[in-house]
Amino acid sequence: MSRRDRADVAVVGAGVIGLGAAWRAARRGLEVIVLDPAPGMGASWAAAGMLAPLSEATPREAALFPLASDSLDRWPAFAADLEADAGAEVGLRHEGTLAIALDDDDRRHLADVLDRSRNFGLSSEWLAGRACRRLEPALHPSVRGGFEIPTDLQVDNRAVVAALVGVVEARASLRRETVVEFRPGGNGRAHRLLTASGEVVEADQVVLATGAAASPIAGAPDACRPPVRPVRGDIARLKGDPDEPVLSRVVRAYVEGRFVYLVPRRNGEVVVGATSEEGGWRTASRAGAVHDLLHDAIAIVPALSELELVEVIGRLRPATPDNAPVIGQTALEGVLLATGHYRHGFLLCPVTADAVVAALLGEPGPSSVTPFTPARFS
Amino acid sequence: MSRRDRADVAVVGAGVIGLGAAWRAARRGLEVIVLDPAPGMGASWAAAGMLAPLSEATPREAALFPLASDSLDRWPAFAADLEADAGAEVGLRHEGTLAIALDDDDRRHLADVLDRSRNFGLSSEWLAGRACRRLEPALHPSVRGGFEIPTDLQVDNRAVVAALVGVVEARASLRRETVVEFRPGGNGRAHRLLTASGEVVEADQVVLATGAAASPIAGAPDACRPPVRPVRGDIARLKGDPDEPVLSRVVRAYVEGRFVYLVPRRNGEVVVGATSEEGGWRTASRAGAVHDLLHDAIAIVPALSELELVEVIGRLRPATPDNAPVIGQTALEGVLLATGHYRHGFLLCPVTADAVVAALLGEPGPSSVTPFTPARFS
Repeated sequence: MSRRDRADVAVVGAGVIGLGAAWRAARRGLEVIVLDPAPGMGASWAAAGMLAPLSEATPREAALFPLASDSLDRWPAFAADLEADAGAEVGLRHEGTLAIALDDDDRRHLADVLDRSRNFGLSSEWLAGRACRRLEPALHPSVRGGFEIPTDLQVDNRAVVAALVGVVEARASLRRETVVEFRPGGNGRAHRLLTASGEVVEADQVVLATGAAASPIAGAPDACRPPVRPVRGDIARLKGDPDEPVLSRVVRAYVEGRFVYLVPRRNGEVVVGATSEEGGWRTASRAGAVHDLLHDAIAIVPALSELELVEVIGRLRPATPDNAPVIGQTALEGVLLATGHYRHGFLLCPVTADAVVAALLGEPGPSSVTPFTPARFS
Repeated sequence: MSRRDRADVAVVGAGVIGLGAAWRAARRGLEVIVLDPAPGMGASWAAAGMLAPLSEATPREAALFPLASDSLDRWPAFAADLEADAGAEVGLRHEGTLAIALDDDDRRHLADVLDRSRNFGLSSEWLAGRACRRLEPALHPSVRGGFEIPTDLQVDNRAVVAALVGVVEARASLRRETVVEFRPGGNGRAHRLLTASGEVVEADQVVLATGAAASPIAGAPDACRPPVRPVRGDIARLKGDPDEPVLSRVVRAYVEGRFVYLVPRRNGEVVVGATSEEGGWRTASRAGAVHDLLHDAIAIVPALSELELVEVIGRLRPATPDNAPVIGQTALEGVLLATGHYRHGFLLCPVTADAVVAALLGEPGPSSVTPFTPARFS
């Protein structure tokens, strides 16, 4: 016999985006059911948790900067609120980022990045190699220079996910179920979601926060299919000594034309990321991808070679045709999208959650989200 | 209440050496109890399974060659017998080894190895790079040359371990228990082994096949303490397509002064090994060790970068002061050692098992084992 449930809102997908939106919606008094067979175990589980609008502001993605910057501003309150509600810390850190160049080619490239970043309000000066090593003594002696981005933040991605799972379970309903079919309602009828175990969830509004999920939900009309493609990212986690941290802040670098970051956690761990690979439908990481991550990390900070490699993990990130997210009401009444966050899921979580809740309640949302509605792809 | 058991022989340690000896002893009619909290999960689980006396004949270890060669000769019958008794295959392969050099330094080094190997009866000719690539088309175009060792064999280490566990469970008794104390007998009294769960095993003879176990057994007299030190080895396992194998034989190479081997399995997997690190008491592998393995493997066979990295695993190998095993009767009556096999556990399993069984029964054993008695260290 099938079980039947009803809620104001059904959220499909319990990554950082779906969980964040569900939590905020529940806090505003909406009845919310979240559906995901493995909450938090998708791309959110492999993220580095950098909150770095400037570091990520590539020329092609410059349009994203106001949205990213708005969301960064929302993070301290979002984190404080989440920590209070969950009774657990999420590892928000304020040490900022040090961007560095390893050789002369990298230096030219990074100097261009600094120039561009000034347009976004960065006032940092170029630092010589010695000044970089004064900030981070573990850097390789051949580091040519770099600059600080003091406004960048970071969170511990897995701590955020765990906290969000906790508050969603407390304030809403989190079902570890796979949605296999979507029967759209509209005209006064509720939308219906069928799960693999035979459960039926009826909801007035549905938020599709399905990330880079391999297959769209059967029955979902084209009007609400997210225009996403999967871009694989792999990271490595190294175990260090919390009492003698190798790094005190996030370090980003260009090495042989590749982009690498090192994110130190309070527990001594260093997250090394990330590869970027279109498609990449495989379970384990490519040997070459892991090689490149370790090579680049050790090239920047030789002492990392002595740390234990405790995990290599890869996940699919959802990217749209313009690499910016799709957030808001689709052409189908009561069906919202919140996906396509690509490399920026954690950074964009607070502003996305606020935008989704505003849309669900029919209130005006953050203006920074306006350019990123699903309508731009139709 | 403690359980009490009696047997002719107790074997402490269920790696390939302990299991092999226990199986052969049980086949000769001895009652055998084997004790190990995690049978087969030590160094044997991380081995590559190469049976390669010549490839491994470094100048320092030349004394080992007659023993290794004798054991290699015993492998085909040992494998056939084990497969028949276990009803399972162990992946014995006869394609031999191709030893290659990547650059000119490596070429000089490898040419010396070929010269030395002629003293051990190898009649192979030096092959130019093109001839090497004709044998293994996936080799990097810059491979400078090498030579074949057609007599090398390989087995699938995990298949051998699984088969040995099966036959030992069928013909003897395998207890998943940790031995915490050894109370030597002698003068007509049985030796007694106490386990962590309170079991007491009495046996007329005891075989210590304890590998590189971190702590000696409490109560064991100095006369039977194996003179071993731990040498860590890490390997990586890459998942390939069994229908389109990247390699058809074992490839060994020197890369930037490091030694690396690539062992293709019938299931498409390629085992990449191995690091060598004195001590190395850690759970996970060093990031630098994994980097070197992947770097060297991809340098030799670029296509390996596209395979999935499915496992990185490191274990401690037991090495003695002269890097050769200790096999046979100790100064303590009825207590035998079978350990110190270092990088050669699988290769030396058949001859070690035959030597142990002969010693247990008071028969003459293989003469190749004579130089490797425990007495040489006292």
